[in-house]
Amino acid sequence: MSKLIDYAEVQRHTSRESCWVILYGYVWDVTDFLPNHPGGTNIILKLAGKDATEEYDPIHPPGTLEDNLPESARIGPIDTNTLPQPVKAATDVGPEPNTEVEVPLAALLNLDEVEAAATKKMSQKGWAYYYSAADDLVSKGFNNTVYRQILLRPRVFVNCKDCDLSTSFLGHKLDIPIFVSPAAMARLAHPDGEWGIAQACKKFGTIQMISNNASMTPEQIVKDAASDQVFGWQLYVQTERKKSEDMLARINKLDAIKFICLTLDAPVPGKREHDERGKFIAEDTSQAVKDAGGQELKGGGGIGQSLFFGTDPTLTWTETLPWLKKHTNKPIILKGLQCHEDAYIAAQHTPQVKGIILSNHGGRAADTAPPAIHTLLEIRKYCPEVLSKLDIVVDGGIKRGTDVVKALALGAKAVGIGRAALFGLGAGGVEGVERVLEILRDETATATRLLGAAKVTDLGPLHINTRAVERDIYDGPANLPGIEGAVKGLWAKAKL
Amino acid sequence: MSKLIDYAEVQRHTSRESCWVILYGYVWDVTDFLPNHPGGTNIILKLAGKDATEEYDPIHPPGTLEDNLPESARIGPIDTNTLPQPVKAATDVGPEPNTEVEVPLAALLNLDEVEAAATKKMSQKGWAYYYSAADDLVSKGFNNTVYRQILLRPRVFVNCKDCDLSTSFLGHKLDIPIFVSPAAMARLAHPDGEWGIAQACKKFGTIQMISNNASMTPEQIVKDAASDQVFGWQLYVQTERKKSEDMLARINKLDAIKFICLTLDAPVPGKREHDERGKFIAEDTSQAVKDAGGQELKGGGGIGQSLFFGTDPTLTWTETLPWLKKHTNKPIILKGLQCHEDAYIAAQHTPQVKGIILSNHGGRAADTAPPAIHTLLEIRKYCPEVLSKLDIVVDGGIKRGTDVVKALALGAKAVGIGRAALFGLGAGGVEGVERVLEILRDETATATRLLGAAKVTDLGPLHINTRAVERDIYDGPANLPGIEGAVKGLWAKAKL
Amino acid sequence: MSKLIDYAEVQRHTSRESCWVILYGYVWDVTDFLPNHPGGTNIILKLAGKDATEEYDPIHPPGTLEDNLPESARIGPIDTNTLPQPVKAATDVGPEPNTEVEVPLAALLNLDEVEAAATKKMSQKGWAYYYSAADDLVSKGFNNTVYRQILLRPRVFVNCKDCDLSTSFLGHKLDIPIFVSPAAMARLAHPDGEWGIAQACKKFGTIQMISNNASMTPEQIVKDAASDQVFGWQLYVQTERKKSEDMLARINKLDAIKFICLTLDAPVPGKREHDERGKFIAEDTSQAVKDAGGQELKGGGGIGQSLFFGTDPTLTWTETLPWLKKHTNKPIILKGLQCHEDAYIAAQHTPQVKGIILSNHGGRAADTAPPAIHTLLEIRKYCPEVLSKLDIVVDGGIKRGTDVVKALALGAKAVGIGRAALFGLGAGGVEGVERVLEILRDETATATRLLGAAKVTDLGPLHINTRAVERDIYDGPANLPGIEGAVKGLWAKAKL
Amino acid sequence: MSKLIDYAEVQRHTSRESCWVILYGYVWDVTDFLPNHPGGTNIILKLAGKDATEEYDPIHPPGTLEDNLPESARIGPIDTNTLPQPVKAATDVGPEPNTEVEVPLAALLNLDEVEAAATKKMSQKGWAYYYSAADDLVSKGFNNTVYRQILLRPRVFVNCKDCDLSTSFLGHKLDIPIFVSPAAMARLAHPDGEWGIAQACKKFGTIQMISNNASMTPEQIVKDAASDQVFGWQLYVQTERKKSEDMLARINKLDAIKFICLTLDAPVPGKREHDERGKFIAEDTSQAVKDAGGQELKGGGGIGQSLFFGTDPTLTWTETLPWLKKHTNKPIILKGLQCHEDAYIAAQHTPQVKGIILSNHGGRAADTAPPAIHTLLEIRKYCPEVLSKLDIVVDGGIKRGTDVVKALALGAKAVGIGRAALFGLGAGGVEGVERVLEILRDETATATRLLGAAKVTDLGPLHINTRAVERDIYDGPANLPGIEGAVKGLWAKAKL
Repeated sequence: MSKLIDYAEVQRHTSRESCWVILYGYVWDVTDFLPNHPGGTNIILKLAGKDATEEYDPIHPPGTLEDNLPESARIGPIDTNTLPQPVKAATDVGPEPNTEVEVPLAALLNLDEVEAAATKKMSQKGWAYYYSAADDLVSKGFNNTVYRQILLRPRVFVNCKDCDLSTSFLGHKLDIPIFVSPAAMARLAHPDGEWGIAQACKKFGTIQMISNNASMTPEQIVKDAASDQVFGWQLYVQTERKKSEDMLARINKLDAIKFICLTLDAPVPGKREHDERGKFIAEDTSQAVKDAGGQELKGGGGIGQSLFFGTDPTLTWTETLPWLKKHTNKPIILKGLQCHEDAYIAAQHTPQVKGIILSNHGGRAADTAPPAIHTLLEIRKYCPEVLSKLDIVVDGGIKRGTDVVKALALGAKAVGIGRAALFGLGAGGVEGVERVLEILRDETATATRLLGAAKVTDLGPLHINTRAVERDIYDGPANLPGIEGAVKGLWAKAKL
Repeated sequence: MSKLIDYAEVQRHTSRESCWVILYGYVWDVTDFLPNHPGGTNIILKLAGKDATEEYDPIHPPGTLEDNLPESARIGPIDTNTLPQPVKAATDVGPEPNTEVEVPLAALLNLDEVEAAATKKMSQKGWAYYYSAADDLVSKGFNNTVYRQILLRPRVFVNCKDCDLSTSFLGHKLDIPIFVSPAAMARLAHPDGEWGIAQACKKFGTIQMISNNASMTPEQIVKDAASDQVFGWQLYVQTERKKSEDMLARINKLDAIKFICLTLDAPVPGKREHDERGKFIAEDTSQAVKDAGGQELKGGGGIGQSLFFGTDPTLTWTETLPWLKKHTNKPIILKGLQCHEDAYIAAQHTPQVKGIILSNHGGRAADTAPPAIHTLLEIRKYCPEVLSKLDIVVDGGIKRGTDVVKALALGAKAVGIGRAALFGLGAGGVEGVERVLEILRDETATATRLLGAAKVTDLGPLHINTRAVERDIYDGPANLPGIEGAVKGLWAKAKL
Repeated sequence: MSKLIDYAEVQRHTSRESCWVILYGYVWDVTDFLPNHPGGTNIILKLAGKDATEEYDPIHPPGTLEDNLPESARIGPIDTNTLPQPVKAATDVGPEPNTEVEVPLAALLNLDEVEAAATKKMSQKGWAYYYSAADDLVSKGFNNTVYRQILLRPRVFVNCKDCDLSTSFLGHKLDIPIFVSPAAMARLAHPDGEWGIAQACKKFGTIQMISNNASMTPEQIVKDAASDQVFGWQLYVQTERKKSEDMLARINKLDAIKFICLTLDAPVPGKREHDERGKFIAEDTSQAVKDAGGQELKGGGGIGQSLFFGTDPTLTWTETLPWLKKHTNKPIILKGLQCHEDAYIAAQHTPQVKGIILSNHGGRAADTAPPAIHTLLEIRKYCPEVLSKLDIVVDGGIKRGTDVVKALALGAKAVGIGRAALFGLGAGGVEGVERVLEILRDETATATRLLGAAKVTDLGPLHINTRAVERDIYDGPANLPGIEGAVKGLWAKAKL
Repeated sequence: MSKLIDYAEVQRHTSRESCWVILYGYVWDVTDFLPNHPGGTNIILKLAGKDATEEYDPIHPPGTLEDNLPESARIGPIDTNTLPQPVKAATDVGPEPNTEVEVPLAALLNLDEVEAAATKKMSQKGWAYYYSAADDLVSKGFNNTVYRQILLRPRVFVNCKDCDLSTSFLGHKLDIPIFVSPAAMARLAHPDGEWGIAQACKKFGTIQMISNNASMTPEQIVKDAASDQVFGWQLYVQTERKKSEDMLARINKLDAIKFICLTLDAPVPGKREHDERGKFIAEDTSQAVKDAGGQELKGGGGIGQSLFFGTDPTLTWTETLPWLKKHTNKPIILKGLQCHEDAYIAAQHTPQVKGIILSNHGGRAADTAPPAIHTLLEIRKYCPEVLSKLDIVVDGGIKRGTDVVKALALGAKAVGIGRAALFGLGAGGVEGVERVLEILRDETATATRLLGAAKVTDLGPLHINTRAVERDIYDGPANLPGIEGAVKGLWAKAKL
């Protein structure tokens, strides 16, 4: 073994010229990595000469160091006897759960209460990352209120003793019509992280889609899965394609992961001010992070912007799908479709594309983008045949079981939750996520029965009154081109 | 007479294995009843060894103990000399009225002020039960605001010296077009309970529909009725049909009860969080209450959930109505219809079914269910002939006389109040209910005159402008099947 | 002269059997009048044995005592030496202006600021009477916000150096398109009372319509009028027709009064809770005031209800207009029309009827009645020819010059203000009313010019965008009967 | 040189008969100018005998004294030794920036935060002038919220690596589709004034339109311009035409100024109460400012009203454009069009008129005037050919990059900011304006990419859902006359 490194020695390497940090008991020389750090140089410099484990850990999955630094960068183990007590990152509240806050999970009656409990318990930084959405949070808010605009049409004198909540997606059975959408950085909420979400999904018999930016490795997340448990894996294609190809190769080996979810709604990051105020990026603006187009990222930065480092903004129907097909045999679903035209085009790509997630990225990408329900109503209006060609699911804004049944009544196979699962994790780890799923399951069952349906797959448009929403959805010309020249043709028409 | 039981002896029976409670001066052994208690085991265990009368009384009508326990369970009279002073249920505010709050009824000018007065005077638990509605209280609020969306169209130069407020329902005359809808547990508000409501209805010449979950027996409620006073009796059909049949036999003997009101809008309970926070059900979740479908009831529970214990969720047009016909000759009305299709089907069941109550259960069942006014407008749009086949009344959200005349102008024979009567009771017993009816009567008379009508039965659609509401009502296909296969056919169409 | 009455003697007459009060230095025996007092018996009994002048004066015009009591009731002059110092009505804040509040009128920039100033300065009772409106103040608020829903359409490149604000009504020229609607009890705001409003109208060259319930006599109000000043006089027909006929005979002699304004929108009083809380009527409910239909008036009462005592609710097109024609040769205008049908019928009554005021009585009669702008749009939609047959004006909710031009653009000849004039009076007497008219005049001129119009009579529908309002107005069948059987026919159609 | 004037001597000239003030170290006799001062006599009298430089400087460009007073009025230099220390204008907070407030510009994440920072730092008077808008600020608010009513329609699978933000206006290239609209009195915010805005525009490659009421001379503003920098100059035509002609002659010599922007939306000033409360005009109402029509300006006055002194309200299509053509060869754009009719007429005036700014003057002219987006949608609906004949830009309410792309998608060539630039200046001088442009540029780039467009000129109606706005725009008859008799014809039609 290497000899122990003295803390005094580490203290001598705190500059751009020589920068050492302590991580998991080891001293690393990260000097050469400084200019490449997605989160910017300064965030590392602020931690130079210190034990950065607490800062680093919840937002980097295992293997990150090894993937990005040569073996020689690992100087050796720190001599812990020389460490001052305690070593803390100076300015930020630690991301670990506030263990002094007691949350009686059974007393949390709804998802707002779960979020409130998590807000008390989580670090400000973690909360800000989850809570944040683009600009003025218009889409984030609308994602939820659009469900309030839809009225139920309960039927009476229907036997609703039995209530079957099961549904299917890509041929897999879900016990409940609620799945977990890809959501990054779960360990900001709780050490159980994405593995914890997997445990809750196992208990409720539903699907977890693993974020490309998970804070744990896919292998860690699926390791205690049930034999029939279903996972998806979210892909953000990297500009450095080799990285994505390597990752796909690794995913291909994991049988629990049944499909790839290609995310399309955030080719560049939205502007999430709550997150940016987290001050991940410091004052030295000469070292500002650049976005995928080479333009400097402004403002305070934030976790959200860091995660986008390296994401490829050049994806197209004609090039990306064939490339992806070459690197995986797993079925593909596309996430982030926000207008009927793209849903229509997606349906031309069956059988490779098997499903789509209507999503505005939880309101975190383009603010004032439409809620998924708008897109679903657009599809019903302009190209309803897509509903029979693809499995369609939605996410964004789900807070109540009545929201769930409304999406199902319009043809969604299931609904995804993102922040709700993360806040559940923040409120109580695995049990917190379970409480979230339990609340939604029970509310969904109640709503289904009160609508007079014996099973959720019986729900249809006659169970709801969407008139108030329908008068707001897009009412221009239907733009449904043949697959040849589709995109190009649309642009042409779009001009005056 | 049995010998007196010493309080020290009672104190020895406070466990799941042996559980005694004192009720109305007698010691009861309720051990065998523990697992069957609709409100859950724990609520009883919390009162074990204590005088539970104060907790028990306002929510159980007389005869409940005798109906549910064998004679042997009555151990004997408590030796009151051995009782500590005072004996109080530890944690809950007593449900009795706060007698120190003075409410000058004549100074209460409107229904909001009556509710505010009752809120001050009632126990938190009773208030929460009445105030609560499903989920986010969207439907509860909408029930009222929908009336604000309708504008009046006053006519001038019409003689309105005389103003006849009388109307009729099922051939019975009502002096005012306002009746009391079935509303449970009136003694939570005031010891006068449902009997008190009956006294007020007598004075104002109108109908009271007695809740299936009244806190007094039907015999008690009708005992001081006027010779021509009209009551309805609300039926929640029990899974254990024998119980309902026995109850119907008992109702059949009461001449004052002129019709049966079969409630359909709540085959399972809605989620009423204000009520659930009342903590009627304690921490031992292994003993959780189950709903009618056998699924555990989650969350804090509450009076609302307890009351649903035993309610049959399997009712259907084809089976339940014939069964009911076999057990009573009284006319039937159906309560809780929320779409034109069900109103249309109901009209196929004349003459057995004589009327319907358009209701969303005061917003307490499915949240975001439509207000009764939506359903009434749907009927006018899709199947107006129903208005001439059935007597239609509405309830939910009535706060002003202008609300009353709007419902009447659309064809309702009368409007029902629920919470308003209960809050009147809470504010001042019989006189409080009378004040509520007086306020509404006077406001209705003023509104009728200002519309230029000499009697409420002259009111029609020309007196109101419903345009703002009409653009929100259901605008899908009219679904008016023949009675054969109606329900089944609807489900078929509802799917894509 | 009678001998002086000792205060001690007066003190002996404070009961229902013998009731004396001191008014304007005289002792009156009002015992026989007690049961006939519009304001109820108790309000007088509370003042029995006291100097009631301060209470009585601002709400009774001169001559009221003499008209209602025999000469014998005037016992004689009080011996002022025997009066205690000071003599005050015990419970109410005096109605006189709070002279300690300084209001720099020039610093009040808009009508809201004038109202705020008056609110500080006036008695609570007077404020409550003016501020109050029916029920929940929905119509009062809507009267104003409906103007906010209309957008202007300014034109550019139009010479707007000169801006002619003059308009006409019934052939009389108004220098500004703003008149004062009949509004009662001006002396509650300021001793200048209705005479003060007349002075301001003289200065601005516009019309004042004198309330039937003015706190000064018509003769007092018009006495300092300019030679060409124009007044209208509002008539509430009394059940005791002789009273109205006598009053008309008196009005007929006043040349300054050019027309009679017959008010139709309040055959019975609306429910004005702010006013009722003023507690004009005391606790003895056995003496409650009755309304015109003989029904007891409930609640706290108030000035508004008192004023309605004796108003005839039996008026009809076929009987009242001929009666009125017999008693005056002055032109008639009808106030309070709220739907196109009644405007259409009014147009059949030319030439006797020369104009109409579209009004919902300032939101004080039927709450949720439509704002005048709705009625005007209804007329434009269903029977635009009425605009050329009658001079139409509107009132209610005017706060800004942009409101004025919007009403004019839709065809109103002018707009009336009620509360604004009274609050102006409260803020600063004559000068306060002048400031109100000055603000509105200047804002109207600015708005007219910015619309690109050289004179207000050039304004038309092309200057405004009413789309947001038009989608809310009545959209049922047009009900435009021939004059024979009109009303009866409407009722027939109104029923299902 | 003149001999030094003693301060004691200056003190003797403080009346209407003889009024001296000290400005920039010189004593001026302004007695003869008193009645002609646009801001009123009193504002000068308040400063008589004092050093008025601090008050005077930020709202008068250099040369104002010389242009308005004869040489003889300059008495001579003040003897500074005789000046008391310190000499301050008594009542008003000085207009200079509050230098103690630190604003870290990089930490301001959006335009609201910039405004909040400027609000803290600026004088109350300057803030009130910028913040103020007409009447109730309805149009000011609607200018912004109308953008929130429009939804984006992001497209996926489009290569958005490169994002070209450049656009053009009148043939000039703009690097970003955001320019600075004419906005007066920039030195109220910061000594950098309009020159500072020019520096920021240089850095971002965009156009500045210089206000007719700039607080610096055009020569000062353009003096450090880049060789290819583009300016416009705003013209308010003066009643005294010679003044405007002289000014045009001066502008004609400045090559950097490429076009004249004739402002039409404010022939008279709107009523800006925040500004008027600044109390620029004092109590002596006998000296009140008169508006262009000769009518006294009421209320507290304010900077806004002062600036309008001398503005000609008689402009017309047929007279003003030919006059202007005679006095300049620079292209003309028209600012302040608010309905499709005027846009249509403008298009008849090509090639002299080359562009139009749809604007309601930042909500500062007619309150409840429509936002520019309404006018743009009107043009698209009634006369879309105007879009190909004129370069159309909009201003008012822009707060976010998503607002920018929405205007562009509807056919605007660029969007203007007014207050945002001024508040940027107030927050941090040149760097503050740069930060504003940087924020908007980056947000616009993000929005463009998330819509799936590679350049802003690709944006079109298919990228947005304007349905919620379209249902509110003008829906009357299209009024598109030939150019002969256009205006006259419109008035004729506008009447009933």
